Amino acid sequence: MTEKLPTLLFQAGRHKRVAGGHPWAYSNEIQMDAAAKALPKGGLVRLADAGGGVLGIATFNPHTLIAARMLTRDLSVTIDAGFFADRFRAAAALRDRLIGRPYYRLVHAEADGLPALIVDRYGDVLVVQANSAGMDRLLPQILDGLATVFPGASIILRNDSAARGLEGVGEEVRVAVGAVDGPIKVEENGATFFADPAGGQKTGWFYDQRDHRAFVASLAQGRSVIDFYSYCGGFGVLAATRGAARTVLVDRSAGALELAGKAAAANGVADKVELRKADAFAELERLAEAGETFEVVICDPPAFVKSKKDLANGSRAYRKLAKLGAQITAPGGILLVASCSHNMPPELFAELVAKGLGDARRQGRILRFSGAGPDHPVHPLLPESAYLKAEVFALD
Amino acid sequence: MTEKLPTLLFQAGRHKRVAGGHPWAYSNEIQMDAAAKALPKGGLVRLADAGGGVLGIATFNPHTLIAARMLTRDLSVTIDAGFFADRFRAAAALRDRLIGRPYYRLVHAEADGLPALIVDRYGDVLVVQANSAGMDRLLPQILDGLATVFPGASIILRNDSAARGLEGVGEEVRVAVGAVDGPIKVEENGATFFADPAGGQKTGWFYDQRDHRAFVASLAQGRSVIDFYSYCGGFGVLAATRGAARTVLVDRSAGALELAGKAAAANGVADKVELRKADAFAELERLAEAGETFEVVICDPPAFVKSKKDLANGSRAYRKLAKLGAQITAPGGILLVASCSHNMPPELFAELVAKGLGDARRQGRILRFSGAGPDHPVHPLLPESAYLKAEVFALD
Repeated sequence: MTEKLPTLLFQAGRHKRVAGGHPWAYSNEIQMDAAAKALPKGGLVRLADAGGGVLGIATFNPHTLIAARMLTRDLSVTIDAGFFADRFRAAAALRDRLIGRPYYRLVHAEADGLPALIVDRYGDVLVVQANSAGMDRLLPQILDGLATVFPGASIILRNDSAARGLEGVGEEVRVAVGAVDGPIKVEENGATFFADPAGGQKTGWFYDQRDHRAFVASLAQGRSVIDFYSYCGGFGVLAATRGAARTVLVDRSAGALELAGKAAAANGVADKVELRKADAFAELERLAEAGETFEVVICDPPAFVKSKKDLANGSRAYRKLAKLGAQITAPGGILLVASCSHNMPPELFAELVAKGLGDARRQGRILRFSGAGPDHPVHPLLPESAYLKAEVFALD
Repeated sequence: MTEKLPTLLFQAGRHKRVAGGHPWAYSNEIQMDAAAKALPKGGLVRLADAGGGVLGIATFNPHTLIAARMLTRDLSVTIDAGFFADRFRAAAALRDRLIGRPYYRLVHAEADGLPALIVDRYGDVLVVQANSAGMDRLLPQILDGLATVFPGASIILRNDSAARGLEGVGEEVRVAVGAVDGPIKVEENGATFFADPAGGQKTGWFYDQRDHRAFVASLAQGRSVIDFYSYCGGFGVLAATRGAARTVLVDRSAGALELAGKAAAANGVADKVELRKADAFAELERLAEAGETFEVVICDPPAFVKSKKDLANGSRAYRKLAKLGAQITAPGGILLVASCSHNMPPELFAELVAKGLGDARRQGRILRFSGAGPDHPVHPLLPESAYLKAEVFALD
């Protein structure tokens, strides 16, 4: 099959980064002639240096800054359902070793050799997000590959990310294989939760915070806990199962709180969990005004910096969140502040949070500053793709 | 007591960082007049802005770049055994909550409100390292404070760090309280180890790698493991207790290997552990040459960048270590590379390790990139004090 693919040439000397293992070629590195521009959006190409030496097989989008994304450097490979099945098997074997139970991010894009593809696994339900024109075009092979490795699994396409807009492909949310009716079960850290893969945020659940949830919950026994942006209860309900005296979940979404309540009931801690439908900042300000404090305070907001132009506003929001969070943390208490903004560098985030603590006139220490769990691996040459940052403090 | 202390003045406007919570004043921020220069090395001072407004009580060294280190902002406090006992109680309460068993770093300097002071706890044995002239001068109060909070504990002074040379205080290693005879027991991650607090590296054990050891060991079941710079077996012996098929420990120190062997025996895994006295680089090169591979490879060297002038040489050493480590990692294997060099920034370390993997022509993904465990907290305004970096890869 490979020899039938069109060959896309780098400009002279511009192939070196990709030759060294980087998975992306930028549009200004490619010989973007009329033939290249006429290639179909998301089609497969053979990517070659200016002399015609083929480096590998990639998807190509003539309209985006990231023009080509490398799928394989093995020219004997055909990009078909079997190719994807092999990658899915390797990804599943790694997660089974890391996590044990079949609830995890199965495919984390470039780090799993599948650029721009996300697959989250909820037991027998798989949720797929194709974040490039290339992966969108390959969806039939992806679905076949998944069906081979996970026979009987239901598959939901959750193709409504902002990234797809940049790639010029439309939105599509549907059950592609099998049937999924209502909320699905999630197991994490030994507890049971519920998610809505079709209607919830992203793929319905955020596995990336798994280890941070376990860490904070391990410090919650006998303590009062408040969980802002609680979503379906991954932090707060887990803390309740680990013996928190009282847990308040704060979220604006009635649907998310309903799922969190269902999780609290399933884990036998409904009497310890209060669901509070409110805007996080409004509730933080109300509690700070009232002088009410909690012994464990969790602030895990959605991205405040969705694009680089939001950096100034988003920075102010993180600093304010840290300030308010610190204000309502009891003396000796634990405070977690997280950012999932890809455009917020870790050093700046830490500086903003430190300033927020200063604004609140609180001293303390950083117990932990870490990223997403190991089922969200990072490509060694894409360190900037490590988007998640969570900082946990013990305050004086 | 406070009013009897000499007052040390900042230059006009230079107090702001410290007023904002930073624990250090640099010598070029201080009014370093004849009276200041005549103050005793390591003595207590009241640190004040140029107008005489007192900010707090600090130790002062007229001969070092870091001139003053803040002990407290509460002017009603007397710096005596009771002051230290209060700090030790708070530090112990936090560790008991974090770790559970009494084997941890009890005091991690600035982050615990005790600048330049290190105390490691091994059950009833405490090992103290005073890394400034100020803390050295306060050792009588420190020892009294420890004896108050930990009655019956033995206390070892391990005052042989390089930092003390910069502070102009001499070396001193001795048992200050009680008696310590031979190696002492360490509990970590549910296993038993042995350390030599008087003769071993640093305070005898490196608690900072606790979580990384647990993570790697969780991936070792049924696998072959090699642990370079194994020291007393914190990584390798733990992996053996978690079911590694075979573990090789490599270290140059016969004494460290003897303690590792003792740990292997105590945990009932002596038959699974091979002790190999060798230089790590020589052994790595020998194995790479021979084409021998292991399924889990651990490279946790001593600091290659002891000072900024070592950065170029140290960088080459980390890159080479990553290359050789990757070369002897079996397909699908796990590779850990760590750096405890304070002078090696995390981004540069990650770049060097990525290049080393490239040199070995190995692809893979970063599963985890993290720092020291939570008993080594970080002061929010000293993010650069987070010295430890460990990167764990799953290689293709």
